[in-house]
Amino acid sequence: MARLVLSGDTGALARSLSLIIDESGEADVLIRSFFPKSGSAQKIGICGPPGAGKSTLTGRLVALYRKAGLKVGVLAVDPSSPISGGAFLGDRLRIQDHATDSGVFIRSLATRGMVGGVSHTIFGAIHALEAWGCDRIVVETVGTGQDEVVIARVADTVVYVTTPTMGDEIQAMKAGVMEVADLFVVNKADLSGAHKAISDLKTALGLGREAGCGGWQTPVLGISALSGQGLPELLAGLDEHARHLRDSGEGRERLKRQYREEVSLYVSRRVYQDALSQMDSHLDELVDHKSDPPSVAARMLRGGAN
Amino acid sequence: MARLVLSGDTGALARSLSLIIDESGEADVLIRSFFPKSGSAQKIGICGPPGAGKSTLTGRLVALYRKAGLKVGVLAVDPSSPISGGAFLGDRLRIQDHATDSGVFIRSLATRGMVGGVSHTIFGAIHALEAWGCDRIVVETVGTGQDEVVIARVADTVVYVTTPTMGDEIQAMKAGVMEVADLFVVNKADLSGAHKAISDLKTALGLGREAGCGGWQTPVLGISALSGQGLPELLAGLDEHARHLRDSGEGRERLKRQYREEVSLYVSRRVYQDALSQMDSHLDELVDHKSDPPSVAARMLRGGAN
Repeated sequence: MARLVLSGDTGALARSLSLIIDESGEADVLIRSFFPKSGSAQKIGICGPPGAGKSTLTGRLVALYRKAGLKVGVLAVDPSSPISGGAFLGDRLRIQDHATDSGVFIRSLATRGMVGGVSHTIFGAIHALEAWGCDRIVVETVGTGQDEVVIARVADTVVYVTTPTMGDEIQAMKAGVMEVADLFVVNKADLSGAHKAISDLKTALGLGREAGCGGWQTPVLGISALSGQGLPELLAGLDEHARHLRDSGEGRERLKRQYREEVSLYVSRRVYQDALSQMDSHLDELVDHKSDPPSVAARMLRGGAN
Repeated sequence: MARLVLSGDTGALARSLSLIIDESGEADVLIRSFFPKSGSAQKIGICGPPGAGKSTLTGRLVALYRKAGLKVGVLAVDPSSPISGGAFLGDRLRIQDHATDSGVFIRSLATRGMVGGVSHTIFGAIHALEAWGCDRIVVETVGTGQDEVVIARVADTVVYVTTPTMGDEIQAMKAGVMEVADLFVVNKADLSGAHKAISDLKTALGLGREAGCGGWQTPVLGISALSGQGLPELLAGLDEHARHLRDSGEGRERLKRQYREEVSLYVSRRVYQDALSQMDSHLDELVDHKSDPPSVAARMLRGGAN
């Protein structure tokens, strides 16, 4: 099946993704076959508050990349849902428009219950999409929450989307977002207050950091995902950032960070499952108060699986 | 400090909880001292959809238990927030009424980014509250999401709260909730449709399982948290369930399940942190595609920390 994915077969990709996301026994073999292609796509993370227009923007980006002849993957990450599958994407017409296009693959991932909102399976899904031949992978978070933390662990390029009506949110923007975002997008820039929002953001960025991370000047772009205004500039900015990552060596560092995270999550997940299944012998001790959780944990950590 | 907590000192409890929640180096020592009291409180989990009145109900329960002379702890678990602390509780007047009562301790816990929405630190917080002398600990989830999964891992008695206006939600209720809830509460039972909601739930329960888990007949109670209607019956039901847990041996089984979860989370958290910090030597291999994440993970799992 891995070979089919590598040859661009969409059905095989869909089946592989299911095996990876369900942590099936075949997942490791697939990922080993896919991994040589890892790092071949630009992974673009879209984050921002609910209502900022992340889904609409994602749909627009997909359409523009398709028009440019690029192969695109979309991972919609939902940290609040424990259910795998893509049912809720049915509502999202703008993305759904591409459902019959063989150069786009869309998958939603539930990540509730994962360390840091990220599961190692997200990385596996990215490996599969890259093996399938994606040039760009858009990782969009669905739902509420401070998604930039999740996105920054997975993406090469982080886009933070906000709107002019979210002035308070911009004012109160956490330092974390400033550090994590590579491009700021003020969506619905046809609304009044857009200029102020953009200049507020620029001021905050100027105060927040000096020359930018590794020489990158974080742009603040006004767009309208609905009308298409400003999208060519956003696309150019995304390409520019990909070039910057390549030329500065920062791309390699980010890839390392992603692999570190992936392996660590994978290891701890295995250990968690092993611990759950192998610790029955200790439970009576605990219920009878002959030991305590930190002591049992320390013993398990010292002794490996037991 | 552990001794102060065990003697009922509230300031020492507050400081201990901070050390435990922040995973400070002193946490393990504290938990070892607290653990002998583990299992001494009934841990009551309150879950249900947003707007069902969980906070109001929690406030009511606290007031009633205090009137009965019991010491009460409240843990407000917020799976969507990455910020520790209790700031958002400031809005919750009904609970805040008890802020100056020395027989109540309220703490909010952010659990975003934890495996299954539960962190081992929740269990540590429970150990501290029991050491302090709590007779009842109410664990309430804040925010959206399918909280019953989280609650069932931590609580002895799970209360699922819904309202008559959430008929669709009842109709579509997932099997998971049916299995996990020990008491169903239809809040706002003064609204029209309450009788139907209650009888729908009873029907669903009758179909869903036979004699109930270990002989427990899951009650469906109509209440009004606002007016107080039905609360004495709810309190009686909660006491009844505590008796059932004790007499049937199910309480001991649940405690075992909680300890299993606590130790497993603790172990995997440590391993995750170790892996993150110790795997730098493998990263170049990965970036250069000389190995792949499952292989590196397997090597780390075989070789212990390396």
